[in-house]
Amino acid sequence: MSGNSFGKLFTVTTAGESHGPALVAIVDGCPPGLELGPEDLQHDLDRRKPGTSRHTTQRQEADEVEILSGVFEGKTTGCPIGLLIRNTDQKSKDYSAIKELFRPAHADYAYHHKYGIRDYRGGGRSSARETAMRVAAGAIARKYLASCGIVVRGYMSQLGPIEIPFKSWDSVAQNAFFCPDPDKVPELEAYMDQLRRDEDSVGARITVIAEGVPPGLGEPIFDRFDADLAHALMSIGAVKGVEIGAGFASIAQRGTEHRDELTPAGFLSNNAGGVLGGISSGQPIVAHLALKPTSSITTPGRSIDIHGKPVEIVTKGRHDPCVGIRATPIAEAMLAIVLMDHLLRQRAQNADVAVETPVLRQL
Amino acid sequence: MSGNSFGKLFTVTTAGESHGPALVAIVDGCPPGLELGPEDLQHDLDRRKPGTSRHTTQRQEADEVEILSGVFEGKTTGCPIGLLIRNTDQKSKDYSAIKELFRPAHADYAYHHKYGIRDYRGGGRSSARETAMRVAAGAIARKYLASCGIVVRGYMSQLGPIEIPFKSWDSVAQNAFFCPDPDKVPELEAYMDQLRRDEDSVGARITVIAEGVPPGLGEPIFDRFDADLAHALMSIGAVKGVEIGAGFASIAQRGTEHRDELTPAGFLSNNAGGVLGGISSGQPIVAHLALKPTSSITTPGRSIDIHGKPVEIVTKGRHDPCVGIRATPIAEAMLAIVLMDHLLRQRAQNADVAVETPVLRQL
Amino acid sequence: MSGNSFGKLFTVTTAGESHGPALVAIVDGCPPGLELGPEDLQHDLDRRKPGTSRHTTQRQEADEVEILSGVFEGKTTGCPIGLLIRNTDQKSKDYSAIKELFRPAHADYAYHHKYGIRDYRGGGRSSARETAMRVAAGAIARKYLASCGIVVRGYMSQLGPIEIPFKSWDSVAQNAFFCPDPDKVPELEAYMDQLRRDEDSVGARITVIAEGVPPGLGEPIFDRFDADLAHALMSIGAVKGVEIGAGFASIAQRGTEHRDELTPAGFLSNNAGGVLGGISSGQPIVAHLALKPTSSITTPGRSIDIHGKPVEIVTKGRHDPCVGIRATPIAEAMLAIVLMDHLLRQRAQNADVAVETPVLRQL
Amino acid sequence: MSGNSFGKLFTVTTAGESHGPALVAIVDGCPPGLELGPEDLQHDLDRRKPGTSRHTTQRQEADEVEILSGVFEGKTTGCPIGLLIRNTDQKSKDYSAIKELFRPAHADYAYHHKYGIRDYRGGGRSSARETAMRVAAGAIARKYLASCGIVVRGYMSQLGPIEIPFKSWDSVAQNAFFCPDPDKVPELEAYMDQLRRDEDSVGARITVIAEGVPPGLGEPIFDRFDADLAHALMSIGAVKGVEIGAGFASIAQRGTEHRDELTPAGFLSNNAGGVLGGISSGQPIVAHLALKPTSSITTPGRSIDIHGKPVEIVTKGRHDPCVGIRATPIAEAMLAIVLMDHLLRQRAQNADVAVETPVLRQL
Repeated sequence: MSGNSFGKLFTVTTAGESHGPALVAIVDGCPPGLELGPEDLQHDLDRRKPGTSRHTTQRQEADEVEILSGVFEGKTTGCPIGLLIRNTDQKSKDYSAIKELFRPAHADYAYHHKYGIRDYRGGGRSSARETAMRVAAGAIARKYLASCGIVVRGYMSQLGPIEIPFKSWDSVAQNAFFCPDPDKVPELEAYMDQLRRDEDSVGARITVIAEGVPPGLGEPIFDRFDADLAHALMSIGAVKGVEIGAGFASIAQRGTEHRDELTPAGFLSNNAGGVLGGISSGQPIVAHLALKPTSSITTPGRSIDIHGKPVEIVTKGRHDPCVGIRATPIAEAMLAIVLMDHLLRQRAQNADVAVETPVLRQL
Repeated sequence: MSGNSFGKLFTVTTAGESHGPALVAIVDGCPPGLELGPEDLQHDLDRRKPGTSRHTTQRQEADEVEILSGVFEGKTTGCPIGLLIRNTDQKSKDYSAIKELFRPAHADYAYHHKYGIRDYRGGGRSSARETAMRVAAGAIARKYLASCGIVVRGYMSQLGPIEIPFKSWDSVAQNAFFCPDPDKVPELEAYMDQLRRDEDSVGARITVIAEGVPPGLGEPIFDRFDADLAHALMSIGAVKGVEIGAGFASIAQRGTEHRDELTPAGFLSNNAGGVLGGISSGQPIVAHLALKPTSSITTPGRSIDIHGKPVEIVTKGRHDPCVGIRATPIAEAMLAIVLMDHLLRQRAQNADVAVETPVLRQL
Repeated sequence: MSGNSFGKLFTVTTAGESHGPALVAIVDGCPPGLELGPEDLQHDLDRRKPGTSRHTTQRQEADEVEILSGVFEGKTTGCPIGLLIRNTDQKSKDYSAIKELFRPAHADYAYHHKYGIRDYRGGGRSSARETAMRVAAGAIARKYLASCGIVVRGYMSQLGPIEIPFKSWDSVAQNAFFCPDPDKVPELEAYMDQLRRDEDSVGARITVIAEGVPPGLGEPIFDRFDADLAHALMSIGAVKGVEIGAGFASIAQRGTEHRDELTPAGFLSNNAGGVLGGISSGQPIVAHLALKPTSSITTPGRSIDIHGKPVEIVTKGRHDPCVGIRATPIAEAMLAIVLMDHLLRQRAQNADVAVETPVLRQL
Repeated sequence: MSGNSFGKLFTVTTAGESHGPALVAIVDGCPPGLELGPEDLQHDLDRRKPGTSRHTTQRQEADEVEILSGVFEGKTTGCPIGLLIRNTDQKSKDYSAIKELFRPAHADYAYHHKYGIRDYRGGGRSSARETAMRVAAGAIARKYLASCGIVVRGYMSQLGPIEIPFKSWDSVAQNAFFCPDPDKVPELEAYMDQLRRDEDSVGARITVIAEGVPPGLGEPIFDRFDADLAHALMSIGAVKGVEIGAGFASIAQRGTEHRDELTPAGFLSNNAGGVLGGISSGQPIVAHLALKPTSSITTPGRSIDIHGKPVEIVTKGRHDPCVGIRATPIAEAMLAIVLMDHLLRQRAQNADVAVETPVLRQL
């Protein structure tokens, strides 16, 4: 219900600021009997973790998660799962200079007008640091989904001006960019090195895919699967656009081209991105998201202070020059959470539905 | 809570199928004291209504709305507003041929697997006909927002391959396309005429804008304003992509380019689309949505029936060759509903907040 | 989400005032494939209907319900079910005299302060007339529950000072009071006749019971079955108290007396009222509710007007001298709605749970 | 949304088991700018804390709460408040004997059927230990309410067969029973001492009152103030009944007696318990709750094990012989949370309402 909760049956509620004592989450609605330990969450947390390459922020956080409840003798009990990650590498002093300033493209100005008060240390609640808990909660969803044959994966499909065609999932795991083409990695590294020298930042495009999804997930008309997914992905800081399947390319498509024809062997294409009428079709779910360039850059910019006076501002601190680089595990987590929520909703309402029509996959 | 409700404090719940007896909505949460009559809703309903030009479906629906409750002596009472629109021009016989078939790119296949049963007449619940109630509910929101100085408008910014630059709001009201450039209208008409001869359909891009929005709307981290807006817009049938502000163009932007600098006179640009950290900034809210080409076309296509057998399918009935043409009022309505919901949420939690910092608008 | 919706997965949203054009409801979340027609709803509506004996209001309403959506070829489709009941016997002129007065024990004063405006005709939204839609929605739930072997029934267990011991369900259907003891009916009739002569009103106690409920319904800790049921029953106008099982009698019970012992043959008692730890136990669900005496009586009383001036007030119009008399079907409906909602929630989260332990019933 | 969340705008979500590592809560929706520190929560936590007299469980828990987020420089920021209480005095070994048994009147049997798995140590999630977090969250609400002139208090109004008339609030704070009559305390102590010798337990009645409540809180028709309050109070473990105002006594009241007449000086009585038509009237909110006797007693009882075999059971461990003794702060907390939620909801929707009619209080 609250702004810090997501999901109707698989509900993730989080709290915590960048430089506060800890991040905390309560994951409610996980079915009982799932084997679960901190190590299941740690794997994805480590993939998102800062400081693992020279291309991301140098903040060092172990991001060690503690399970506080909901697991007994190694299995989920159906009761809510409490999660805790202590912040360990805050350097709050870096931020006192911006206490009364609004950094352009940051949440500062909006938070100030909304709340009248703000924790300015590292962006407070608006920091990307909160995404650690999305990843932890998503890891629970992913483990359950895997037990149902549903696999959620993602990769970087564009870095600034560099488009990255998909080559292999193996590649994704083998570089700091989640780049699916090993041959592109040197180009990405060179681009990032130059960017750092330019004291600038850049945007990125992430693609997430779920395979093995049963048809039937999604609740028309407002809680369509794609609508909830758009909500989930757009709620990630820095995301400015979401596409399902062909996305914006659909605009110039003809109906004869866009429609995914069905044959007894399977769907012939996937412009739909796995969603028809807001309901999963059994094709892979495919979504793309656009992340804006990091707002925190050391090149000076114009702004005002809380009194309305003009200032020149330089954002110091430790930042990612491209927030998109660490965004893949976060986007995967949100897709997993949406899948989990809709899997449970579908069970609730349509437990008795059985049709003779075979489930088609994409050819 | 249910899949057919949207909004937490301004809640719109709808029901009704394309060829059932009626569409119905309950709008809960409208503040008391707003002057409201059916004519306030009818204006927007007429803008969405089918059959008003040769470029849209020839189904003739008066779309006359009756207010069943929540209004007393011409003013809202704070009680839920019941709305009713009778369907009058159903031609259900057109559809019996597709009873056991799945039209490609339609919801048929997904509904069949989800529910095991489906009202195949005109798409049933998955028909764009349900959007009439979105428009009616949105009109209530728009009237209230107008009383707060918030204006919501939209236009078609692309039709198939034809990009349409914004010229004037006056133009938008003067053609069937919601086209903001009068000089482009003949080109759009010629394109549509050819499309009809080709027995094909095409996609479109719609842009919606809200001006006069106070800073502070949006609830981090999951109910950010942009996240809820993405949810709302993606829930419209045929929408495959949503952008806020610079959207997908952000990917290739540098931070120095993307960040909207602030001066005492106002924001210098609006790549953010009016949302910072998920909270409205006072700049205009700007969103773009991509609509896919209509799935109902008379060019034959391959599909299967409910027994899994291959069939060739031709979609008859009365259809829009470009669903985007009538989508502008629908997108405006959803933006208005999201604004209304967040305006109320902001009042709830931050009623006492007062800051000396001036509200900046975009220059 | 809104105040006029109830239930998380089986969601009932209603609108409509006592003297407006119609009552309307949207019931979302009914599983597909349930045979349903207006006659299924009419049966319970007729049991609640005014004007069927001299002991209730003489307002004549047919309470004929129209199903607007969600049913196709006689079966539910899984899409939201729209319901409409036109008001036909409003006599609004009766009420103009109270336009600026607050009737004691009515909602007038509270609505006035809350909304600043109020539909004073027959109580507007605060009228018991809205309960017709609860009954209609409850009838859908009851039909589905019946298909799962769950039976929901209720009776009057006390009228004013007259306690009514349970004798038989047959009796309940055979008198205007829902009285389970045919021998008590003459006493009730005499009491009511005297009450009318006294120009006074009186309270009542209703008992509702659900049998055949599977163990496992209810979501700790806040959405316990008994908590949601208390919410549902207390939301009925005029209800001032709710008990589960032994209720207030538990206060003076010893633990050795209260605890319902288990044997392989079944539970030995049911002080719990079918709920343990907020979860259904398989014993019958038993709840009692206290209804206050009708506020609308013709004996003059002291009050004030909207300007704060003292007035003497006499409530005219057509009223039930004991609202409890028609409350049984309403309480049954709310119990059915809560059961339905929790049945779906239990399916969602615990679909895979299977235990060897036999389900015990009450001996 | 989830079963472990309560409140729509002031949302409390909790997790944690009796013998797990910790209890955790996320409180979302507290307005910014409220001065808040752990000491504000500790006061109420200490009032609920076990082990403070010989009449409650001897489990020793410091119940020290840590604020993890949402507070910056001593003030709330509007962001979610994370709370943590470590469990320190678990003696889980006490419970291994009941691993496969169902204690009568406990949640064991129902949890087993619902989840198939259960944390049997001290009742796991079904333990009253979770109420510590209700009290902590309630303390935040109480502090905010106090700043609005709303005072929430409670007392024990009956212990087993002993009725306790209200004498003074001073007395409540001066004994372990929250007894409002100092002269009754010796009788209560003697009763409890005998009860312990009898190896039995007993129920209690708690009364909670809120004064200074503005008229207008509560959202008809389902989220009436009294309905939400009944939900909140019935969600406390061991509660079997809830009354508002005259409650079950209303049944035998006449309308002329029950109705609270209004005069320019104030209401003449408060049978309504401060709620008219589901909306607060400005009179004190008054609610009573019935708590059943503790289920954990050492007198042997009959039950079955998970295989359906009969067993004789004795509940060991450290238990409260009357759970009602520590229930007052919990009931106060739930009343405060409901008030807070509805205060925010009222602001959202009716911010502009202003009437000339004076607010009446009770004489």
